[in-house]
Amino acid sequence: MSVALSVGAAAGSSADELRRFSFNQATAQRWPLPDVVAGCVAAGVPGIGLWREPVAEHGLARSAKLVRDAGLTVTSLCRGGFFSADDWRADNLRAIEEAATLGAPELVLVSGGLPPGGRDLDGARRRVADAIGELAPHAAAAGVRLAIEPLHPMFAADRCVIASLAQALDIAERFDPTVVGVVVDAYHVWWDDTVYAQIERAGPRIAAFQVCDWVTPLPEGVLLGRALPGDGCIDLRRLREAVDAAGYGGPIEVEVFSAEVWARPGAEVLDAAITGYLRHVV
Amino acid sequence: MSVALSVGAAAGSSADELRRFSFNQATAQRWPLPDVVAGCVAAGVPGIGLWREPVAEHGLARSAKLVRDAGLTVTSLCRGGFFSADDWRADNLRAIEEAATLGAPELVLVSGGLPPGGRDLDGARRRVADAIGELAPHAAAAGVRLAIEPLHPMFAADRCVIASLAQALDIAERFDPTVVGVVVDAYHVWWDDTVYAQIERAGPRIAAFQVCDWVTPLPEGVLLGRALPGDGCIDLRRLREAVDAAGYGGPIEVEVFSAEVWARPGAEVLDAAITGYLRHVV
Repeated sequence: MSVALSVGAAAGSSADELRRFSFNQATAQRWPLPDVVAGCVAAGVPGIGLWREPVAEHGLARSAKLVRDAGLTVTSLCRGGFFSADDWRADNLRAIEEAATLGAPELVLVSGGLPPGGRDLDGARRRVADAIGELAPHAAAAGVRLAIEPLHPMFAADRCVIASLAQALDIAERFDPTVVGVVVDAYHVWWDDTVYAQIERAGPRIAAFQVCDWVTPLPEGVLLGRALPGDGCIDLRRLREAVDAAGYGGPIEVEVFSAEVWARPGAEVLDAAITGYLRHVV
Repeated sequence: MSVALSVGAAAGSSADELRRFSFNQATAQRWPLPDVVAGCVAAGVPGIGLWREPVAEHGLARSAKLVRDAGLTVTSLCRGGFFSADDWRADNLRAIEEAATLGAPELVLVSGGLPPGGRDLDGARRRVADAIGELAPHAAAAGVRLAIEPLHPMFAADRCVIASLAQALDIAERFDPTVVGVVVDAYHVWWDDTVYAQIERAGPRIAAFQVCDWVTPLPEGVLLGRALPGDGCIDLRRLREAVDAAGYGGPIEVEVFSAEVWARPGAEVLDAAITGYLRHVV
């Protein structure tokens, strides 16, 4: 637990101001889970977004107890999906169980890219829809919502063939909105001139709202070039107002993948995330 | 002029096979214009896509004469646009005149990103539409079509706020299709699940069709990571068939920005471009 936190820029934030704030643990990639949890408690943060790998490392049951004992709400688990992998079914069924064990209401799905050497984008997209159809009854039974995350089109080849909110909704709308929803991640959708119309369309299907910021130049591989809220060019407040207007009142996760942010101490990153959230999102 | 060309994989291509082929000079960035022109003639390539900078370096009138004397058709001039720059009006008027001098029927517009520190994407998009409205009469008078190029959404912040074919058409449709059209560049639009519907919508507004291929990982800055046709995951033939079905019968430009391709000798690159075109596009 960081003492530095209490003198950070975000110190003194009221519980009401942070009511919807959730810290996605990937934002402080190198902060061990017990420290993230302690840091969140110290900062008055009510929610945490978890990832399967660090949870597995700490132990699933231990992680669930750690977070529960700390009084934190698990807002989402990242991630299922990658439906182009051979073992997608077994892996996603495990992910659903893990989400249920952790008390995560939403399992974020990153749907996977094209198969190696493949060019059949339509086929890959059909497989995503089919896979979600197979998983939906298991998710419903476990009380976990499948949250389809459209990724930025720059990831369409290798990470996620679902490249827009409209596309994610085209799939989600085939299911009960309490079973299959969509993730609105500002980083992935901000460029889209139809995003506000699609957010309105999404309504109760908005399963999660994530924020970080867009900065250039993008780094090699483009994965780790995100910025803390307010450090880039996304109108985060407008997007937050739009999801609110669509009826979403759930958590707002700060989730930043950034080599630069990851190099900073976890408590400092959490403090900066809170500051960015208060200044640029709510 | 390269003798190597005659022994390249593309040697022996018939005039009919290459009827629509155009070599965008940016594909062999370091090949001086006279050599590009000689290389195209030697390979039986009928069309060339030019860029303003190398044309200016060789001299506008000299370049026009060089290409004309060689019997090549200038298929497009890159590029106008960048409407966020202070001098956009004067610069684009010059670009229109240059296109007219070169006999380029299409002036490709890359519309520019957000102003420094800006977050107002809608405002930037309105400025693009307004600027095109101002330029259209000048373009019409010069017999040059303004060809709005939607760029991949990964360039929305810093290069082009027009990020989809639908968006480009929303602007183009305000004008006579002989005065304002759109560029369909496979690299920028392949990921879009609405692209085939939008190509059909575009019809006579398709001013240019450009091809290259998508490979990962993307390099730092993401500009120079493209591949020659066939070396990546884009279904180029399907896109070519779609523009044809929409009524487009014009040139097909191979345009590749790639540090790796640029390091190769120009004649070898042209040969590889022709080979990729014949195997994967037509």
